[in-house]
Amino acid sequence: MAQLDAALAKIDSNLDAALARLFALVAIPSISTDPAFAGEVDRTAEWLAADLRSLGFEAAVRPTTGHPMVVAKAGRAGAPHLLFYGHYDVQPPDPLELWESPPFEPRLVETPEGKQILGRGVSDDKGQLMTFIEACRAFQESGGLPCSVTILLEGEEETGSPSLPGFLAEHRAELKAELALACDTGMWDRRTPAISVMLRGLVLEEVVVRGAARDLHSGMFGGAAINPIHVLALIIADLHDENGRVAVPGFYEDVTELPEEIAEQWRKLPFNGRHFLEEVGLSVPAGETGRSVLEMIWSRPTCDVNGIIGGYTGKGSKTVLPAEARAKFSFRLVGAQDPEKIAASFRSFVKARLPADCEAEFVSHGASRAQQLPVASAALSKARKALREEWGKDAVLAGCGGSIPIVGAFKRDLGMDTLMVGFALDDDRIHSPNEKYELSSFHKGMRSWARILAALAAERT
Amino acid sequence: MAQLDAALAKIDSNLDAALARLFALVAIPSISTDPAFAGEVDRTAEWLAADLRSLGFEAAVRPTTGHPMVVAKAGRAGAPHLLFYGHYDVQPPDPLELWESPPFEPRLVETPEGKQILGRGVSDDKGQLMTFIEACRAFQESGGLPCSVTILLEGEEETGSPSLPGFLAEHRAELKAELALACDTGMWDRRTPAISVMLRGLVLEEVVVRGAARDLHSGMFGGAAINPIHVLALIIADLHDENGRVAVPGFYEDVTELPEEIAEQWRKLPFNGRHFLEEVGLSVPAGETGRSVLEMIWSRPTCDVNGIIGGYTGKGSKTVLPAEARAKFSFRLVGAQDPEKIAASFRSFVKARLPADCEAEFVSHGASRAQQLPVASAALSKARKALREEWGKDAVLAGCGGSIPIVGAFKRDLGMDTLMVGFALDDDRIHSPNEKYELSSFHKGMRSWARILAALAAERT
Repeated sequence: MAQLDAALAKIDSNLDAALARLFALVAIPSISTDPAFAGEVDRTAEWLAADLRSLGFEAAVRPTTGHPMVVAKAGRAGAPHLLFYGHYDVQPPDPLELWESPPFEPRLVETPEGKQILGRGVSDDKGQLMTFIEACRAFQESGGLPCSVTILLEGEEETGSPSLPGFLAEHRAELKAELALACDTGMWDRRTPAISVMLRGLVLEEVVVRGAARDLHSGMFGGAAINPIHVLALIIADLHDENGRVAVPGFYEDVTELPEEIAEQWRKLPFNGRHFLEEVGLSVPAGETGRSVLEMIWSRPTCDVNGIIGGYTGKGSKTVLPAEARAKFSFRLVGAQDPEKIAASFRSFVKARLPADCEAEFVSHGASRAQQLPVASAALSKARKALREEWGKDAVLAGCGGSIPIVGAFKRDLGMDTLMVGFALDDDRIHSPNEKYELSSFHKGMRSWARILAALAAERT
Repeated sequence: MAQLDAALAKIDSNLDAALARLFALVAIPSISTDPAFAGEVDRTAEWLAADLRSLGFEAAVRPTTGHPMVVAKAGRAGAPHLLFYGHYDVQPPDPLELWESPPFEPRLVETPEGKQILGRGVSDDKGQLMTFIEACRAFQESGGLPCSVTILLEGEEETGSPSLPGFLAEHRAELKAELALACDTGMWDRRTPAISVMLRGLVLEEVVVRGAARDLHSGMFGGAAINPIHVLALIIADLHDENGRVAVPGFYEDVTELPEEIAEQWRKLPFNGRHFLEEVGLSVPAGETGRSVLEMIWSRPTCDVNGIIGGYTGKGSKTVLPAEARAKFSFRLVGAQDPEKIAASFRSFVKARLPADCEAEFVSHGASRAQQLPVASAALSKARKALREEWGKDAVLAGCGGSIPIVGAFKRDLGMDTLMVGFALDDDRIHSPNEKYELSSFHKGMRSWARILAALAAERT
């Protein structure tokens, strides 16, 4: 504990220097989606590798067919091996005119809630990844890291991580650790930390329903010819029952109820489902009868149509009976739901509803399992204790309605669970003008990681 | 009858001259949709006015805000007054490379079925309107027209007739006749004439269903937020019952059964519903249980979705919960169905199915009543007798699944029924490359109009 106390003291006394380093990192416009900024992306990777080397990491910029990865290693051999993941690329700052100050000239501002750091990427994800690097620095300056740490920093997260799967496959032995750490998540509120322990999985299916050999005139054929839009509408209408449950056979077979400890915590959370919906102009939860809004978005599986198109969609009218109609479906999965089984059952469900003269084409746009960190896992217990000591209250064991592809990839390709801890706030305006990161998130985020590293280094249970 | 015989003899002996006039008319590229051809459209109107003057009509080219109308008058004062309608504009000939000879260099070709005239507009509608003008010429050269005839020729039919309603309103007194004649229709087959006695009406409605205030991420909100695509699909799914009947309340209230004389004729027609569907890749009639395909497309009302769009419709996937979804609906009306009543009932039907948090916006894209020429009308009896004498068999009293706006306008604005007789064939390739008109359609079409004019001029019944 003496080493942790020393590291925490270093973090407190070196806050200004850490802030200066974050400003230097944010000042490089590492916009991954715009080829004009490829040089800046490279420069950011070099900056990070140099910074990591300065604190004793063996660090290298590794080329990919896209933007490079930064891989760095340090720490005590024989100690638990942790793989930390973050990304150093950022979203474009447009629309520029809505920024109160230039997006790549970071600055500190005072607000009634405290000091905030302003700049593109300051919350997503440069500020967050620096909380971890600064915690490592504090340990290195206090006798060395208590764990074996590998840091993997990606430059393509904002463009869908095209090079990541290949990179993981190629460097499996080097990157495989006992646990992955990811920092791309948020706090429950500005005083309550959170650990994201559940991520929903995803099945993406597109269906094209085809009828006649060509578009028909609805005057000549209307009444006699099958209309694929009607067929598709009937299929969509059948997808949910009157209780809002998904009607695809077997859909709920591998769905498990929430562990009671989490269920109890969620019931006590100061979360107002009505307010959550009101923010987007809604008032009534549209999901399964008898479930809370938090369950609907975090722990229950869903089916939604994300897009539909067929026939004439321009201005005015055209009396066409279209030859085809198409829709894109997404299923959010939880628990042990098997993406392949769900996709197959959905396809059978659609086929069973095709009338004579119609056929369906199916296209998969990807699938991933739900991820869940077992409540009983030792790493989770240690991280919860560490966060309680820093924040003086329990971390929320949060769900996440979306999927974080890297977490699925770590599980699938490297057999690792991921501990997701981040200090972003819902109002950080990530991807929007005037992105900010609370100075308290930055400071207590570093302290939190220092405590987590110390806890994970302690004797294995 | 002596005068009719003289006129028929003139038609037979002057066929080559009539053909030469048709060639001259087809040679002028009166493409109404392309501003580059505006001069040619004008030239066509002038050509027609001059031709009509040459056979004794008082004829003028009347300007509109678009392309001009040709209005011509001749005939015996005190005799029944008939208004003949045709259009002299044509569709663009594209794709040009698919034409076997230049589209505006008409020519006669021999085929196993007989001689055909080739050229853009030869069937739609220049050949058809010339059958009437040539019949008038034959009478003028045989002692004069037996009726009072006004000819109205339009140059904007292929672009939706934008100037026509205003022109009819402005010249109501001049154009109002006892009966309108229109030639823009077809024969049952190459040996059987047809009179189109029923046109379905139309109600065009667009519905926008709106949910949340903005597009939502399906990971963050999926399960809790209402999806307007689902709502729209449920509405569409409810529109038809299990027997294929439209479920909008009151929809069938003003639908009348087919007059028995027509029903009996249709039952005997050599029409193969299965073959009709097979031509477009279908095999099973999709309409009301217990109705024949001819009824479905000619005499029964329908509801179809002509277009639908919502959410993400590009390549791949995007996990969006859209804020809105929209669909375009068309109702084909028959009998005495009231477009306003149907539209109002449809809107109530949609509103009754909107869940909390959704609202609907409605846009009308037009409405028209069904048109029906009473089977018992004297004009219809006379035309049927005239066609029987020319063709040696009964004319089919046909329905038409689509709507012909001019017929509705004549009824609504001038209080006239329209007798629709034309000699086009289904395989005339109108709007397509290598458009043709049978020489027999042209020749016997002129003779048919001569007989109809004589019949309509006879003592009123």
